Amino acid sequence: MYDAIIIGGGPAGLTAAIYLGRANRKTVVLEPVPAGGQAGIINDIVNYPGFASVSGYELIDNMMKQAKAFGCEILYSGAKSVDAAAKTVTLTDGKVLEGRVIIVATGCKAKSLGLSGEEELLGSGVSYCATCDGGFFKGKNVAVAGFGQKAREAAEYLKGIAGKVYYIVRGGDKVEGAENLDGTVTALIGKPLNAIEVVSADGEKRILDVSCLFVAAGYTPVTYLIAGQVKTDDKGYVFTDENMMTSVRGVFAVGDIRVKNLRQIVTAASDGAIAAQAALRYINMK
Amino acid sequence: MYDAIIIGGGPAGLTAAIYLGRANRKTVVLEPVPAGGQAGIINDIVNYPGFASVSGYELIDNMMKQAKAFGCEILYSGAKSVDAAAKTVTLTDGKVLEGRVIIVATGCKAKSLGLSGEEELLGSGVSYCATCDGGFFKGKNVAVAGFGQKAREAAEYLKGIAGKVYYIVRGGDKVEGAENLDGTVTALIGKPLNAIEVVSADGEKRILDVSCLFVAAGYTPVTYLIAGQVKTDDKGYVFTDENMMTSVRGVFAVGDIRVKNLRQIVTAASDGAIAAQAALRYINMK
Repeated sequence: MYDAIIIGGGPAGLTAAIYLGRANRKTVVLEPVPAGGQAGIINDIVNYPGFASVSGYELIDNMMKQAKAFGCEILYSGAKSVDAAAKTVTLTDGKVLEGRVIIVATGCKAKSLGLSGEEELLGSGVSYCATCDGGFFKGKNVAVAGFGQKAREAAEYLKGIAGKVYYIVRGGDKVEGAENLDGTVTALIGKPLNAIEVVSADGEKRILDVSCLFVAAGYTPVTYLIAGQVKTDDKGYVFTDENMMTSVRGVFAVGDIRVKNLRQIVTAASDGAIAAQAALRYINMK
Repeated sequence: MYDAIIIGGGPAGLTAAIYLGRANRKTVVLEPVPAGGQAGIINDIVNYPGFASVSGYELIDNMMKQAKAFGCEILYSGAKSVDAAAKTVTLTDGKVLEGRVIIVATGCKAKSLGLSGEEELLGSGVSYCATCDGGFFKGKNVAVAGFGQKAREAAEYLKGIAGKVYYIVRGGDKVEGAENLDGTVTALIGKPLNAIEVVSADGEKRILDVSCLFVAAGYTPVTYLIAGQVKTDDKGYVFTDENMMTSVRGVFAVGDIRVKNLRQIVTAASDGAIAAQAALRYINMK
């Protein structure tokens, strides 16, 4: 019997582990290899407070060592299913873990545009995070493709940093100060990327010289473990109270999987600390 | 005209600066020396995610360098007054700064016991930070007065350094290795301090020879700049929405000064990031 089972070893899950371990609670973190969630794959993190520059790998590795130093167990195993009410987690190998609380920290994954080469160019001219990577393209031409509020925000954010910003969405939404194109990105050119092919709504094909394509086609929360068990919004993001507790008592959700306004490493880590503290109160109360 | 004026250079204010600087917004951080707020004076931080062990000085110094690297200005000057509605800040030297947004990150300060001479003896036998000043009293007799976890921690810390440690709290809580007294400090004797007067729960008066009294009586938010201008709870902690905006539009509050459940470095930093992002939206909207 664990005090806490944490599913997901990104910044949110690991910070929860650090706080629970420090409080001497028997804690396990489930994390399929490679560890660290979306943070773990960022090349160069420059906006996590305290580090001028750190790789996602190193930051996650530090957090993992910290959690282990406080006695937390890290199990490099995925979870197959969760019974929120019973507080049990079945691992992919069939083993069942029981906890007093469960902390779900399975994060999000970025939606791709589905272009050829898109995955391989990640970090070499394709980015899914303007606030993470925009700063690398000061004065350079960049493009934003996708839709919705996040695409707008990415373009707004980048126009203060980059040279020319192409804002490529369907339907004619415009961002002042950007070059607005009603169209679709159809190909990625160069490795690292140096241009993209765009087909406009009226069928015209153009090649745009850009150093980075920022894809803002949305994220999707990784919720298959708790779908239907806890309250979520219509996209699957989990509702929590201010203590990170979901609609099921003793089940917490932290980090990007949560309904929230800003999904960053530091906000995820903060969620983890808050959930851990609330979990301690919950465990002590029982 | 600044995009953002940030008052306070602890983890909350500096993280807001990092995010605003990264977004290329003209940002100034006001911080009277010494910098870093309460975090800056911690000897050994072990639960900030990413650092197995780091001094408050080093962590704050890192964050400050990060903010500067993104173009933020750090002004080693206090704020004398704030006009929340007008978004102006008057410095102690009378200079007036104007901003599009103001982010208040002035944190908390330790509460005094309210004893006669207490303020004058600060640094001459009265201290509010055992981890900061304990080292000055190697082998000397000291006392800890106050309540709660912080008082315990101070006594635990000091007994490894000082000679005799008197642990003076109401209610009979005990620290092993300390001389535990259920009572109250009623007077400070000498300048510099050489003794304290204590009245025990059963009315007995004692004079204890000590070189320092460490006060651990809780914290109080530093709100004089915005008191009466933004909504607070009855202790003065500032109410914000989930985007850290106070009851005055364009004025944000972050970190320990906020009404919140967990006051930690990582939660303060997270507040800063959230406020910065909301401030960017606010500025873009105007």
